[in-house]
Amino acid sequence: MATNLYDVVIIGAGPVGLMLSTCLSRWGYKIKHIDNRPEPTVTGRADGIQPRSLDLLRNMGLKRKIMEYEPAKVYEVAFWDPSAKGIHRTGTWASCPKFIDARHPFTTLLHQGLIERVFIEDVEKNGTQIQRPWTITGFKNDGVDPTYPVEVNLAHVDGTASETVRAKYLFSGEGARSFVREQLKIGIKYKDPIAHVWGVMDGVVRTTFPDIKMKCTIHSDAGSIMVIPRESNMVRLYIQIASSTDKDWNPRKSATAEEVQQRAKDILKPYTISWDRVEWFSVYPIGQGIAERYTLDERVFMGGDACHTHSPKAGQGMNTAFLDAVNLAWKIHHVESGFAPRSLLSTYESERKLIAENLLDFDARYAKLFSARIPSAGEVAGAAEASDLEENEFIKTFKASCEFTSGYGVAYNPNTINWSPSHAAQHPLFLTSEKGTALRTGRTLPNATVTRAVDANVVHLEQEIPLNGSYRVYVFGGRPATTSRALSDLATHMATPTSFFATFAHKDKALDRYHEKHTPHTSFLSLLTIFNSPRSAIEIDDVLPPVFATYRDHVYADDVWDARVPEAKAAAHAKMGLDEEKGGVVVVRPDGYVGAVVRLEEGSGTCEALNKYFGAVTGRRMGEERASL
Amino acid sequence: MATNLYDVVIIGAGPVGLMLSTCLSRWGYKIKHIDNRPEPTVTGRADGIQPRSLDLLRNMGLKRKIMEYEPAKVYEVAFWDPSAKGIHRTGTWASCPKFIDARHPFTTLLHQGLIERVFIEDVEKNGTQIQRPWTITGFKNDGVDPTYPVEVNLAHVDGTASETVRAKYLFSGEGARSFVREQLKIGIKYKDPIAHVWGVMDGVVRTTFPDIKMKCTIHSDAGSIMVIPRESNMVRLYIQIASSTDKDWNPRKSATAEEVQQRAKDILKPYTISWDRVEWFSVYPIGQGIAERYTLDERVFMGGDACHTHSPKAGQGMNTAFLDAVNLAWKIHHVESGFAPRSLLSTYESERKLIAENLLDFDARYAKLFSARIPSAGEVAGAAEASDLEENEFIKTFKASCEFTSGYGVAYNPNTINWSPSHAAQHPLFLTSEKGTALRTGRTLPNATVTRAVDANVVHLEQEIPLNGSYRVYVFGGRPATTSRALSDLATHMATPTSFFATFAHKDKALDRYHEKHTPHTSFLSLLTIFNSPRSAIEIDDVLPPVFATYRDHVYADDVWDARVPEAKAAAHAKMGLDEEKGGVVVVRPDGYVGAVVRLEEGSGTCEALNKYFGAVTGRRMGEERASL
Repeated sequence: MATNLYDVVIIGAGPVGLMLSTCLSRWGYKIKHIDNRPEPTVTGRADGIQPRSLDLLRNMGLKRKIMEYEPAKVYEVAFWDPSAKGIHRTGTWASCPKFIDARHPFTTLLHQGLIERVFIEDVEKNGTQIQRPWTITGFKNDGVDPTYPVEVNLAHVDGTASETVRAKYLFSGEGARSFVREQLKIGIKYKDPIAHVWGVMDGVVRTTFPDIKMKCTIHSDAGSIMVIPRESNMVRLYIQIASSTDKDWNPRKSATAEEVQQRAKDILKPYTISWDRVEWFSVYPIGQGIAERYTLDERVFMGGDACHTHSPKAGQGMNTAFLDAVNLAWKIHHVESGFAPRSLLSTYESERKLIAENLLDFDARYAKLFSARIPSAGEVAGAAEASDLEENEFIKTFKASCEFTSGYGVAYNPNTINWSPSHAAQHPLFLTSEKGTALRTGRTLPNATVTRAVDANVVHLEQEIPLNGSYRVYVFGGRPATTSRALSDLATHMATPTSFFATFAHKDKALDRYHEKHTPHTSFLSLLTIFNSPRSAIEIDDVLPPVFATYRDHVYADDVWDARVPEAKAAAHAKMGLDEEKGGVVVVRPDGYVGAVVRLEEGSGTCEALNKYFGAVTGRRMGEERASL
Repeated sequence: MATNLYDVVIIGAGPVGLMLSTCLSRWGYKIKHIDNRPEPTVTGRADGIQPRSLDLLRNMGLKRKIMEYEPAKVYEVAFWDPSAKGIHRTGTWASCPKFIDARHPFTTLLHQGLIERVFIEDVEKNGTQIQRPWTITGFKNDGVDPTYPVEVNLAHVDGTASETVRAKYLFSGEGARSFVREQLKIGIKYKDPIAHVWGVMDGVVRTTFPDIKMKCTIHSDAGSIMVIPRESNMVRLYIQIASSTDKDWNPRKSATAEEVQQRAKDILKPYTISWDRVEWFSVYPIGQGIAERYTLDERVFMGGDACHTHSPKAGQGMNTAFLDAVNLAWKIHHVESGFAPRSLLSTYESERKLIAENLLDFDARYAKLFSARIPSAGEVAGAAEASDLEENEFIKTFKASCEFTSGYGVAYNPNTINWSPSHAAQHPLFLTSEKGTALRTGRTLPNATVTRAVDANVVHLEQEIPLNGSYRVYVFGGRPATTSRALSDLATHMATPTSFFATFAHKDKALDRYHEKHTPHTSFLSLLTIFNSPRSAIEIDDVLPPVFATYRDHVYADDVWDARVPEAKAAAHAKMGLDEEKGGVVVVRPDGYVGAVVRLEEGSGTCEALNKYFGAVTGRRMGEERASL
């Protein structure tokens, strides 16, 4: 490969660029990654990692490194409203309430620079360097080289050096001011015409305000403020300086640190607050917008703030950026590995733009409520006591949105990779959320705790395959005595050379894969088997056909009680809504979302249905269809 | 301080020396720490961290660093016995069964060098360097300098340099061959006259043996073997080469790696095994012995293998070493801080030697059974089926010993710091395990999950105060409405200058301690309050007297359901066996063992009882006794 040829050129080393770079560097791609800042974020910026994002970071082996920085954890949000004496708490609400089945029911607060550091260390370990401070000066998809169709011009920010490279893909993670987006003349649609100017201040305070270690939204007669605890005993305050609904609206309106502090003191009365030190302070206007397209040619892509901007209130920016990047990363990987046709790339925009639209809808409702002045308690006749939870509009919106803000509300629509009754693959054994399974395609697999057979370790089933770019095929085996024939039939049909399992088998058969736990047969998928049986009763070589037994580190006993399904004998089966006797097969996309669910049955049907699903996903004929050609 | 004066000179940088060094370096002591090896352990040696030790490492903030090395976790032990075909599994047993209430019910396996590295990094961060390869050549407690009574002669192992220093204490963590012990002419008592020669091999294997990722004890007609999974896909095999009960016993008997591998192959039949690589191999004789004294003068101390040696089978060596060191560390700290009289140091030997004796008793029984050949299944008429758990003597001993091996069985006898009805402090409000509490002094505080009031974080109560050398005073407040007067009375009496709380108050009152979470009043103790109340109902400034409210980061709601006390309204209160309405005060020693339990009552009694307990502990008159002088 010539030195100026890259698989992907990534512009911007914020959350979206780093996540993409991390995935693709791990999977062996050659990346050119630049950022126009001389160094990573030093202070401030985004800082909220939502529960689902933390699952993702754990799946990448990065959670422990994040936690080493001792981030603040937000379990509850407190709501404060005006009262006769100043402000009073109207109630608190879990930030990730119990109705959401989350492993980590809290928001993790840590400044963006520390998070960037974790990713940068990882990409460097995998051979990618962030080139700083460099910027993009031009690009074109000229197709001069059909393998590397995109030419990209890069330059040092001081203009002393420049470089022209060719790439298979160009990605803009440049943030709200995206050169790439401007060049492509992609417009921004404003969902909400109201713009705001925000002041944000990170620092160490001393205060009599009792909820300073909670996330708080405070409305007072002196204005509104949001309190967010931070690592290292810090607290972040968001204060709205101006709104386009103000009479004297000026988007360039600013405020000094002292003014913002005075404002905070006024809002927090009767409590006192003072600052030991201020770590970061900034005032910036926020418009709420969404890019009309995320790509024009499926070669030049954008993600993160380049595609969607919104208020920082719900702590969604970085999380949406992470998920944009992971969604694109595995799709590029599958196309470039020959697993999937180029058309897979079209699902990046359709899936991620929908989520951004949902986010902006939510944000608009939330921000509007936040800035609306609510009548003070004193003004309301018969005001409820402070200890009651007053269900005003703001709190209602907040509650309704918890699933969305936690990250578990993401629901991709049916398409090639998210099976539905209107999918190209038709077979009577597909199960739907109306019939035979509780799972919904396009949503994350629920968590489930099981016991690994080989070492009796109690593990998180949904975390057992790391983010390695492979599909995860969960074979829920029900009762071994019931399904033994169905499993051996499935194994037999999977062994035929035209099956979904055999089609992408490793070509270098001679290579020793004895110690390869996750992908011994093919890097296209990883296989897991879960039995409704106590661990000690599972003799892998007795109950499993040899092809399944090869994945012996991924055989589990569904024998751990779960408070969410207290009556179930096999909690993991029950949480998936699968028959505890007969099981079923759940296909999970490389990014953790359910792709398809198939009944486990004797005969060829189960494998046929999987062949059809993966046939559609990969754009190939599989199984009988191919064999009969 | 002259450059050759040290608080403590530590010989040996294995687990015991490093644990002592880590604690004392963190607490600001000046340490001279030498080791006669040129570098930390590279391969092999001890590797098992028991559940209670992992709690301790977490309490020190070191667990995450240990876990980053991805250690193996042993949840179950499999027992294999001879059968007609070779060997068969007779059963499995949890290594830390459910009847033990452990946060981490598994053994963590990681080679000693990686563990040492975690400690070395910590001591270096706190200003102590390990001087290598240096050795001790002489020492005397000559009292020439009453503050630094011990002279220690140190030399480079190649004799090119030497150094004489003076210290308050000398500690030998030299291992089984202790120069210090020999010089002091302290004998070794052999509990069990039987000696053994062991072969031990770490490596990466490929095998058809199904339990290679479990801890296994295997008896076959070809001999006995122990299998222990390791980090990095390795496995450790312990094979007994010879025993002093053999006819041709020779303690110098050895074996080559090939011989040991052949032996393993023979024992594991009908399964096959081969080695991809061998990381470490060693053959060594093990005698079972215990030092008659741990110190003669309470200036020169020993701990770890210098005091007790035994077979490696139960994975106890490093764990006992850790606990020796922590036990000594806080006692030196309290004596040197002026919190306690020198006599406190005598409890080091009395407490730790008892544990070593228990360990050796257990080990002797276990090792004897392990090396005894058990009749093969074929020899036994009507042999039970392999799937049944055959309760032979070995398995019975193992089960009975789980509490001990997990580390939770440690039970120190009554003494000055472990209150009992015969304690010097007498007061009617002391509670005993027979009356008013489930707790036993001298045992670890049970774990309990609670909600922190200030930030709604769900936390592990027993971990909330880090290992900082302070006593932990847990005030279980029961129902706030019931105990409000009792709490304010306690606060009032604690505020008197002669109370246990005020006696060691920080002297530099001018120092700003606003951000000091754990020890704002005194470094002698940390205070925690736990209410039987939902978190949202706890308004700290309303329910707590100001002195308690100062510890506002340590106020908790006992509102988390616990499967072990399913009927309890307040699970933490219930686990302590305290009245859920009226609460009680639990004093926990700096190393996590319960010191005393006192009823929480209106009036002066609760504070009086605490004054008496701490009066005995510190050798001072406190409260009314002092005030009336």
